[in-house]
Amino acid sequence: MKRTSRDIRTANRYEVLRQIIAESPTSRQELAAATGLSLATVATLVGELLELGMITEVGFEDSAGGRPRGLVAVNASGGALIGVDIAETYVRVELFDLALNVLGRADEDVRPGENRPEQVVAHVAAAVGSVVAQAGVTGARVLGVGVSVPGQVDREGGVSVYAPNWDWHDVPLLDLLAAHIAYPLHLDNPLHACTVAELWFGAARGRGDAVVVNLGTGVGAGLALGGELHRGTTNSAGEWGHTTLVLDGRLCHCGNSGCVETYVGAPGIMLNLRELSPGSPLLHPEDQTATIDALARGVAQQDPVAVKAVQNTGRYLGAGISDLVNLLNPEVIVLSSWVASALGEPLLAEVREAVARHALKRPLAATEIILSPIPTDPVCLGAATFALEGALSSVSQKPGSPSPKKTTGGRTARRTTPARSRTAPPS
Amino acid sequence: MKRTSRDIRTANRYEVLRQIIAESPTSRQELAAATGLSLATVATLVGELLELGMITEVGFEDSAGGRPRGLVAVNASGGALIGVDIAETYVRVELFDLALNVLGRADEDVRPGENRPEQVVAHVAAAVGSVVAQAGVTGARVLGVGVSVPGQVDREGGVSVYAPNWDWHDVPLLDLLAAHIAYPLHLDNPLHACTVAELWFGAARGRGDAVVVNLGTGVGAGLALGGELHRGTTNSAGEWGHTTLVLDGRLCHCGNSGCVETYVGAPGIMLNLRELSPGSPLLHPEDQTATIDALARGVAQQDPVAVKAVQNTGRYLGAGISDLVNLLNPEVIVLSSWVASALGEPLLAEVREAVARHALKRPLAATEIILSPIPTDPVCLGAATFALEGALSSVSQKPGSPSPKKTTGGRTARRTTPARSRTAPPS
Repeated sequence: MKRTSRDIRTANRYEVLRQIIAESPTSRQELAAATGLSLATVATLVGELLELGMITEVGFEDSAGGRPRGLVAVNASGGALIGVDIAETYVRVELFDLALNVLGRADEDVRPGENRPEQVVAHVAAAVGSVVAQAGVTGARVLGVGVSVPGQVDREGGVSVYAPNWDWHDVPLLDLLAAHIAYPLHLDNPLHACTVAELWFGAARGRGDAVVVNLGTGVGAGLALGGELHRGTTNSAGEWGHTTLVLDGRLCHCGNSGCVETYVGAPGIMLNLRELSPGSPLLHPEDQTATIDALARGVAQQDPVAVKAVQNTGRYLGAGISDLVNLLNPEVIVLSSWVASALGEPLLAEVREAVARHALKRPLAATEIILSPIPTDPVCLGAATFALEGALSSVSQKPGSPSPKKTTGGRTARRTTPARSRTAPPS
Repeated sequence: MKRTSRDIRTANRYEVLRQIIAESPTSRQELAAATGLSLATVATLVGELLELGMITEVGFEDSAGGRPRGLVAVNASGGALIGVDIAETYVRVELFDLALNVLGRADEDVRPGENRPEQVVAHVAAAVGSVVAQAGVTGARVLGVGVSVPGQVDREGGVSVYAPNWDWHDVPLLDLLAAHIAYPLHLDNPLHACTVAELWFGAARGRGDAVVVNLGTGVGAGLALGGELHRGTTNSAGEWGHTTLVLDGRLCHCGNSGCVETYVGAPGIMLNLRELSPGSPLLHPEDQTATIDALARGVAQQDPVAVKAVQNTGRYLGAGISDLVNLLNPEVIVLSSWVASALGEPLLAEVREAVARHALKRPLAATEIILSPIPTDPVCLGAATFALEGALSSVSQKPGSPSPKKTTGGRTARRTTPARSRTAPPS
């Protein structure tokens, strides 16, 4: 997409709020220095955020010889944000204040076979109701709900275009959710959620170009370029798991063969283990989580098969990550999601070694490879951030403002559209 | 890099001038509609371009019922730009007017072994002198010289960090050139030059995200994201030729194996041909250009070996391009450089077929794959565009303006820095 003036205003608003959340209290002068924006631009954006109640004035600091500088801080209680992580085996919902502290959490198990959209939606609605009750916030304070669903997502249309593990095709998920949830809804996928979480609160914040390598059952590479999520033309950018690592290699569920995902996704890692030792006791054929956890314990105990399996995985992963280093020349590559946290430092060490062997020297020297520093569920956090971004974008859509050239991806506008009414808040 | 207000102003200035060059004469209102910028922003930027003499007022058009609208057009004779394409076997220099028409061209052969930096610099200096004389422009009208050199380039420092085919390491090329050329100099590589040429004048102009796949002796993928060249953290983004297509495959000069370049660069295509038919008369073992030309003629004549060699090449290329489609979800992929022009439509057809087999449906549906529409040498054109961008960036650096937070990549400032004086213009 081409950037319009409105996109740029929105991006600047994100940047300023990000900085305020990270360093409260702060002055307009410090914000200008940290963001590279002019003081006049910062003053305008701070004014908007104050008007929205997202930040507050919290006093003054002396400036040597000059006028005292006004200080602002994030207004944690100025609103609540809800993040929904729909996964293959569970639904997790967290409610955050505006400083992105978790105020409530609800988990629902999704049983095998329980994969009809209405079933999943019922879990989400129940969990959203539960976190709102837990946190004791009134519905009016909920600025929005970000929902992450695996697979490819039409963000503007609110449609789950393709969720391979459930074989969902073109499910109008946001419409289904809107029948149960009265807050503004924003849909995207876990890859984009994790990336936005790193951009706002993690390893990509304040950095230049970053890549968030998401290692779970599926695999992706979220691209945070120039301080923004690169979504691509139809919001499917980041499908690194389906790039070729071994031409004519392992068959992938996408129909192609030799995809990165078939070597470094959880099922791929299980296959790496099976190739080494078909009868390994580490292998739990029907349970990815148990196998990855067993591998992690095995490595900690110097089990030679476990060590070798993680080495082989690190070698595949390092070759794939070298491609990202050479193609994108990023400042930082973050390993995220549950496989990365489970295998942790031992996997990271193998990856760094393999990347040093494969990548070109110049981009290699510029890239740091690290584990995600986000301590909580990055998908819930990122999904809540979609709601935060939605609330910030909607500033430009107040009556009287010029009409936007494209939609924001949120459904905020619908709240005032009688033609598409919603039922009561979740019970 | 994070975007500052200044970056955004510069990007907007590019966007407006691009549109004026493409559609002269035009009005501020049309420019606002075409660029998505506000009329006030467009009016400011048009004012700056008028002041620079890059555009001129050319009259008025009626607007239904309103005041007549002022029209502006590119001022072709408002300055000259020089583009230098340093290649392994030749140096080509072109001089352009501000509408990017070629006014002069000079070619110098670089003989085998003639690869010391001073030898190459002497060729460039001679050719630059020649085009200025041919075009009959006075030196004062030359706004700048863009220089493209193969390999990895430190743009800010003006250094050829690594040129593999000459085994150049850290050659201070811009300093060497500045001893012979008195105009502002801008250094980058052919991949970035071709990409910028497509952005300003080719298939990426006015589009969203685009990838320029450069097929020559070396191979790269220039990334034009959101209307701008993605350079990465240290200006080495786009090294797609050194991403893995076949783990443990063909040995590459980068030290890795299985790189895309070893299958679809000109030497890789020669190897594809040799694997099919070791004694093929199409094969000119010491001459890449002759071999690729023979292949193109062979395909035109339905020679089965030539057809099969292009099929195999298209299959490798299509698998690699599918990775770009899946990872970046671009709107357009442009095949550029001499191998792409030589093999043309037959190669394009094979690539499209292979991409349709490999890529994910959603990003595939959003991507168009085409041959570059630029009829002249895209490297010279792109290099001249670096000079144009440099001239536009320097607007923000006028005395009295706030000092920039980073350098522009050009050496404009040096012209007024007595400490680093230059010799006379090239003779």
